[in-house]
Amino acid sequence: MRARFDVITLGVASLERSLAFYRDGLGWPTDGVVGTEFHDELTGADGAIAFLPLENGMQIALYERDNLAKDAQIPFREPGSPQFSLIHQVGSREEVDRAIGEAVAAGGRLTAPPHMRPFGFYSGYIQDPDGHLWEIGWNSRS
Amino acid sequence: MRARFDVITLGVASLERSLAFYRDGLGWPTDGVVGTEFHDELTGADGAIAFLPLENGMQIALYERDNLAKDAQIPFREPGSPQFSLIHQVGSREEVDRAIGEAVAAGGRLTAPPHMRPFGFYSGYIQDPDGHLWEIGWNSRS
Repeated sequence: MRARFDVITLGVASLERSLAFYRDGLGWPTDGVVGTEFHDELTGADGAIAFLPLENGMQIALYERDNLAKDAQIPFREPGSPQFSLIHQVGSREEVDRAIGEAVAAGGRLTAPPHMRPFGFYSGYIQDPDGHLWEIGWNSRS
Repeated sequence: MRARFDVITLGVASLERSLAFYRDGLGWPTDGVVGTEFHDELTGADGAIAFLPLENGMQIALYERDNLAKDAQIPFREPGSPQFSLIHQVGSREEVDRAIGEAVAAGGRLTAPPHMRPFGFYSGYIQDPDGHLWEIGWNSRS
């Protein structure tokens, strides 16, 4: 198994609520909800999903979290603490502050205002409507 | 805020246990644990972290999940259901089966044996030692 991944699927409570944040709030391109015609008889998962193509060839897929549990054949429970964060790097301290402002204006929740961390990374954290963490930062040493 | 991320930080219970899976089991390159000299007085987060550089310029960062909660200034609770999955795409059905076999041999837990999904994606799921989901698949329509 090679060292790579191509897509991250984020489990969400509501595709429309997530699209309101990523598409309408942040202005990211997407074809919206697709795949509604599909249903997996083996797992019970429905196909409705929304893809957000990213600048670097990666994609984010938004998928309802109960469907994700069915698709992975794991029991569904309510989510606990965030288990990951996506790091969004920008080119300056001012860009960090601006991007965090944009994310909050789009409906994100600021959990950690930006500050300079001891290893030279100026960053803050916001949560999307499902609590998924984004760390927005600038590496002052690169 | 532009449509991109550069690193995904995975919250883990033990850096060594995760490295045993990703570095020793899967054979992925890493410098191992770095940053042990750093401590953030403001958040209480320690700096110890391990980076896994990926083929496409992305990185996975392994970071203890209580430090991730401190870094993001959110309360720490035990994780619930998986909130995301990382999709690892390969070029054929046989490669899916082989990569899943490698992941299981490395210590991953198979939750969903591979099958052809109705939208033409042949895939299965494994969990890493912290329960983080990897979907390993081949898109038969691309």
